[in-house]
Amino acid sequence: MRCDVLAVGTELLLGQIVDTNSAWIGEQLAGAGIDTFEHRKVGDNLGRMVKALNELLEEADAVVVCGGLGPTPDDVTREAIAEVMGVELERREDLVEWVSTLFTSRGRDMPANNLRQCDIPVGAEPISNSIGTAPGIRAPIGDEVVYAVPGVPYEMQLMMREHVLPDLLRRAGQQAAIVSRTLKTWGTSESGLAEMIADRVDAQTNPTIAFLARGIEGLSVRLTAKAATPEEAWALIEPEERILRERLGDLVFGVDDETMESVVLDLLRKRGMTLGVAESITGGLVAARLVNTPGTSEVLRGGIVAYMTDVKRSVLGIEAELVVSEECAREMASAGRRLLEADVGIAVTGVAGPEEQDGQPPGTVFFGMAVGDEPAEAVGTHLPGQREMVRQFATISLLNLLRLKLSSLE
Amino acid sequence: MRCDVLAVGTELLLGQIVDTNSAWIGEQLAGAGIDTFEHRKVGDNLGRMVKALNELLEEADAVVVCGGLGPTPDDVTREAIAEVMGVELERREDLVEWVSTLFTSRGRDMPANNLRQCDIPVGAEPISNSIGTAPGIRAPIGDEVVYAVPGVPYEMQLMMREHVLPDLLRRAGQQAAIVSRTLKTWGTSESGLAEMIADRVDAQTNPTIAFLARGIEGLSVRLTAKAATPEEAWALIEPEERILRERLGDLVFGVDDETMESVVLDLLRKRGMTLGVAESITGGLVAARLVNTPGTSEVLRGGIVAYMTDVKRSVLGIEAELVVSEECAREMASAGRRLLEADVGIAVTGVAGPEEQDGQPPGTVFFGMAVGDEPAEAVGTHLPGQREMVRQFATISLLNLLRLKLSSLE
Repeated sequence: MRCDVLAVGTELLLGQIVDTNSAWIGEQLAGAGIDTFEHRKVGDNLGRMVKALNELLEEADAVVVCGGLGPTPDDVTREAIAEVMGVELERREDLVEWVSTLFTSRGRDMPANNLRQCDIPVGAEPISNSIGTAPGIRAPIGDEVVYAVPGVPYEMQLMMREHVLPDLLRRAGQQAAIVSRTLKTWGTSESGLAEMIADRVDAQTNPTIAFLARGIEGLSVRLTAKAATPEEAWALIEPEERILRERLGDLVFGVDDETMESVVLDLLRKRGMTLGVAESITGGLVAARLVNTPGTSEVLRGGIVAYMTDVKRSVLGIEAELVVSEECAREMASAGRRLLEADVGIAVTGVAGPEEQDGQPPGTVFFGMAVGDEPAEAVGTHLPGQREMVRQFATISLLNLLRLKLSSLE
Repeated sequence: MRCDVLAVGTELLLGQIVDTNSAWIGEQLAGAGIDTFEHRKVGDNLGRMVKALNELLEEADAVVVCGGLGPTPDDVTREAIAEVMGVELERREDLVEWVSTLFTSRGRDMPANNLRQCDIPVGAEPISNSIGTAPGIRAPIGDEVVYAVPGVPYEMQLMMREHVLPDLLRRAGQQAAIVSRTLKTWGTSESGLAEMIADRVDAQTNPTIAFLARGIEGLSVRLTAKAATPEEAWALIEPEERILRERLGDLVFGVDDETMESVVLDLLRKRGMTLGVAESITGGLVAARLVNTPGTSEVLRGGIVAYMTDVKRSVLGIEAELVVSEECAREMASAGRRLLEADVGIAVTGVAGPEEQDGQPPGTVFFGMAVGDEPAEAVGTHLPGQREMVRQFATISLLNLLRLKLSSLE
């Protein structure tokens, strides 16, 4: 089974928008065990869309067309598919009623243009859109099939998950349910991770096991299983997940949509603890990353960015002679906790570069942590990369240390 | 003149990497007045690369192949171009010498694999790579031409700018120098901006005028001029830039690679002033955005993230009854300036949502500013969008207010 992707939009060719949709679709197809060998981008041009579709269908069993389903005259995906099928468009009254109701329920009149979105090639069928006004299209062409999905990423993703991927799997004669579990890790390299589970990767069948490198979000291990029902697929995932978790231990910080910050905030919330941050090298990134997670306001009291050395002394009261040191990180964590009246204080100080500081080379970072009345702790490390990467790695590394600390508490 | 793009790499199809290169190339081609009608992605597969190149060359005058020039056996762009040309590869001794010297100068032995990077199809010529080990390729095929450039974005961009674009312009019989100036704006909508310079856009010839929407980086107006020499091209840009700047006034915050934060830091540095930040709704983003700019450490003293209301009172000493108010923003700016011992204090407080606070709806934001001994000022606004967008817009809006204030000082 081979499914290729055609992304449509003149703005994609002009570089006004980067096409992230086809990469997302490619990842989903790979996860579902469906080959994808070619992705194309063309502009909003009927002739070129028809040519691209015909060429792709010469080799692929299915094509996903992404974009060009909007209400304006330059949206011609409907027309292109009709031409490839050799049929006319017909206005579907059921869709007219559905989209009119949608506008009415939002207290708005439907613009006449939106009627175009109710046109479907004869012999094709609409795919329902639960969050937008553009229905998708499923168009059988001989033994092959073309799916049209909206270019708006969120609408596209929902339609792919709910309709297109299950339909592709059915067509492939495969079992219809496909589920996946992503184990998110922080703390080792890709080769280190691969070595720890090499025999499981070699022996993979169903579920499959894939590595995904997510930069400053860490490395993920994704299990994907297929079965007749979701329940049966999850039953295949479960024992393999247990084995991998035993191997990887506390390198695994979360699963699926969890992030390092959401996990840390959950751990604090469960323990009824509040957090204060004192940061130097990261300049506010630690606090900023935490506030992007819903529910932060119950947990995060605030932060102090002590960027210049004398601010560390005047605001935080640091006495350590060297500000890039374990001692300074410990004092910063304690001061953050005390000044912000938090249960837990975390801190980071270091050298982003390009110059060295306190005789320490760029990439040198010290993390501090103060929990309750326990003596503050600190640990140092050396992070690779340029200024911006050092800052980002320092941020997630500090949150990971906090995660490990909180997990170790009763 | 039509130039299409072929991006090569199995990791692109699998969605492990998003192809941003072809969007960048498309933008450059558009700026140079060269059409681009189709972009493709294929995997590291010789047969499919050859097929894609042949198909693209049926209609395009030129194709840029991006990626597949590395030293490992799966990098087959060299082989694919040779096959399309109907020639063999030859090992170029001048390249062997060049790449050996490169490794020697870095104190490393050259792996044998890297010799593959010295193979060029007979009749093609290498394009020099001033920052990596992979030479590019310029391969004439009949009246057409294929360029191969590395997949590493920075190497690709340099090679496109220095070699490929000038060569394309020469082939198009166009004048060889193309220069552009980007005016970056903040503070009005795209339609507002378009209205202010509508007559200039209608009358554009050389330079051309284009709008680029850059989300939280603002809206840009890009002038692109072509001429026989860079000097003549700049002479065409200059009078048009002057007219546009007069129209747009202080909506223009910078040009080309400048960012809002680099401009603000420059203004502070020139005036010998230091900055302290007090932030609530943005949770550290204002400080974090500033530290990403080199040279921050002379200017930014630090920041205080007063996320919970009682931290605003205990750490910043805020007395305003409502913490989402002009009064609170003024007090925060003064307190930030005083506590951090800075010349200028800036502050932001507001409601990110989803719930309202102090009777104010989500998106309500107040900005404060305290310069020297002047009384602190504050201004309120309503920002659109979800939590994350409100925070991002609040961050750049605050920096823009500081820019306007600093520009107004003698």
